[in-house]
Amino acid sequence: MTERILLTHGSGGRTAHRLIEEVFVAAFDNPMLAAMEDSATADFSGRMAFTTDGFVVHPLFFPGGDIGKLAVCGTVNDLAMAGAEPLYLSLGMIIEEGLPVDDLRRIVDSIAASAREAGVSIVTGDTKVVHHGKADGLFITTAGVGRVRDGVEISSAAAQPGDKILLNGSIGDHGVAVVSQREGLTFGGDVRTDCAPLGGLVAAMLDVAPDIRCLRDPTRGGVATTLNEVADRSGVGIRLNEDAILITPVVAGACELLGFDPLYVANEGKVLAVVPPDAADAVLAAMRTQVYGRDATIIGEVVADDPGRVVLQTRLGTTRIVEMLTGDLLPRIC
Amino acid sequence: MTERILLTHGSGGRTAHRLIEEVFVAAFDNPMLAAMEDSATADFSGRMAFTTDGFVVHPLFFPGGDIGKLAVCGTVNDLAMAGAEPLYLSLGMIIEEGLPVDDLRRIVDSIAASAREAGVSIVTGDTKVVHHGKADGLFITTAGVGRVRDGVEISSAAAQPGDKILLNGSIGDHGVAVVSQREGLTFGGDVRTDCAPLGGLVAAMLDVAPDIRCLRDPTRGGVATTLNEVADRSGVGIRLNEDAILITPVVAGACELLGFDPLYVANEGKVLAVVPPDAADAVLAAMRTQVYGRDATIIGEVVADDPGRVVLQTRLGTTRIVEMLTGDLLPRIC
Repeated sequence: MTERILLTHGSGGRTAHRLIEEVFVAAFDNPMLAAMEDSATADFSGRMAFTTDGFVVHPLFFPGGDIGKLAVCGTVNDLAMAGAEPLYLSLGMIIEEGLPVDDLRRIVDSIAASAREAGVSIVTGDTKVVHHGKADGLFITTAGVGRVRDGVEISSAAAQPGDKILLNGSIGDHGVAVVSQREGLTFGGDVRTDCAPLGGLVAAMLDVAPDIRCLRDPTRGGVATTLNEVADRSGVGIRLNEDAILITPVVAGACELLGFDPLYVANEGKVLAVVPPDAADAVLAAMRTQVYGRDATIIGEVVADDPGRVVLQTRLGTTRIVEMLTGDLLPRIC
Repeated sequence: MTERILLTHGSGGRTAHRLIEEVFVAAFDNPMLAAMEDSATADFSGRMAFTTDGFVVHPLFFPGGDIGKLAVCGTVNDLAMAGAEPLYLSLGMIIEEGLPVDDLRRIVDSIAASAREAGVSIVTGDTKVVHHGKADGLFITTAGVGRVRDGVEISSAAAQPGDKILLNGSIGDHGVAVVSQREGLTFGGDVRTDCAPLGGLVAAMLDVAPDIRCLRDPTRGGVATTLNEVADRSGVGIRLNEDAILITPVVAGACELLGFDPLYVANEGKVLAVVPPDAADAVLAAMRTQVYGRDATIIGEVVADDPGRVVLQTRLGTTRIVEMLTGDLLPRIC
């Protein structure tokens, strides 16, 4: 194999076949993919969840992760947020001519490892190569199929006054990790992406409370934008307790330095759950038994007042309205 | 809305919401998408087909089609080639900052029209915007889910000696149409892409012959590469009859001028079917009743000799070996 990706690697011919067989099929080893047909096939019965996400992060590698891990976890988490068990992923790659083949292998290995951890199979894929200068190293688009757990009805429109809002840990780590890598900044401490597959955590939560109302992962636009969407679609108000929202000192310091509000910074391993009040303690306890839920807290509640509005009760005792993101805080961190 | 796409259109915030609601959701009007959840959900039972394809064509518009039509038909056809009824598509867009919003609307309208014709719904999507100069206008990655017809077992590895090879019309039109538009060439006649959704055609073929062995769409790498894959995976030889392979005079002339072999040029509305000998006439007749099958012919047959090899019997009475594409004939035409 050459050291760098060539246009012929995307031509559909012999060189492309070799890349697919030696790099992709070998790493993702599973019979559905190995059949090498235009479509993967599998028996399925139940309520299907189907989603897609594109990944254009720059740089491709950053502390704690890379675009490959992100591309698996992002789509796995979108399935989990529907109350679905993630099963199958597709992998669409758009590669810029000249990408080092070693970088591609490293990313493919990361995809394979993340898929193993998440319990999903990469069953179908496509690779295109564009001329040098016509992309930014590598873009990945994954789609995913999962099976929604029986009896579960998750919806952003289902929040009700009295419900509690739970979050599984600190916010802002992903966005700050990517920016620190991109800009060559250090903030007096280690910041790593929180990127993680959340299917197991969500399954543990649904085991104790199948009546969870909403599940959302606060990626682009952060916690602020995601909760504004829930408030808007459910026609409810949301009160957040600033004290309960975890932000590590390094992330807090970095955000202060960069002028970011951590409530708007993207996360890639966080879930916001809106839970009926009588189930909140059980869900919280279940989250804390899981590796990605150890730092879970109840960060707020749903109210009837101010429908469509998210209000933060600050540490100082004042309140402030948390708007949906309007400008562009952090481009290209997912 | 601004005249051009801005980075904020991909931020996940208010501007992004407006783009999604005004441009995408309005055009693709369906309840699964309109729910605006992270995953679309639907009941499903049977054998599921799942596939993905990326589209990086340049220019975005060309005679007879555009990247949007291509992105729908490409994935719909991959599902059809599994013997599946195409049902649901995901739409992942990576947009270069500065793309005229009118171009995007035109492409979205084309996606909507193609989806309607193909009988599929765009049920989930994602939009990312990258800095000017970091993409080439627009890249689209679609994934698709379909239901495989009961009792059908299509596979590239299933061709058997004696089987007939059918093709639904002329070859090379798509590649030549894209190149003519890109290079500003005219070839003394109209060349339009053959891009078309083939679900209906394939359904008509399976109605008369559920035992069709292989179905493949000869896109990148053309008829030559696709049939080499079938010969290789099935462990059979293939004999093609040059006289039966339709090439319009304009495409033939353009290929001669450009030094292309039309057998290697991409098609986007063609299906190669490997059919048991006793079903070939019925399948041919069924194809000819369909709008995208009117010009169907039997172009060759499967033989036991020379396994893995495709041999063309030329008009002159000689034979030549048709290899798999080795170099890079026509970059970026899908």
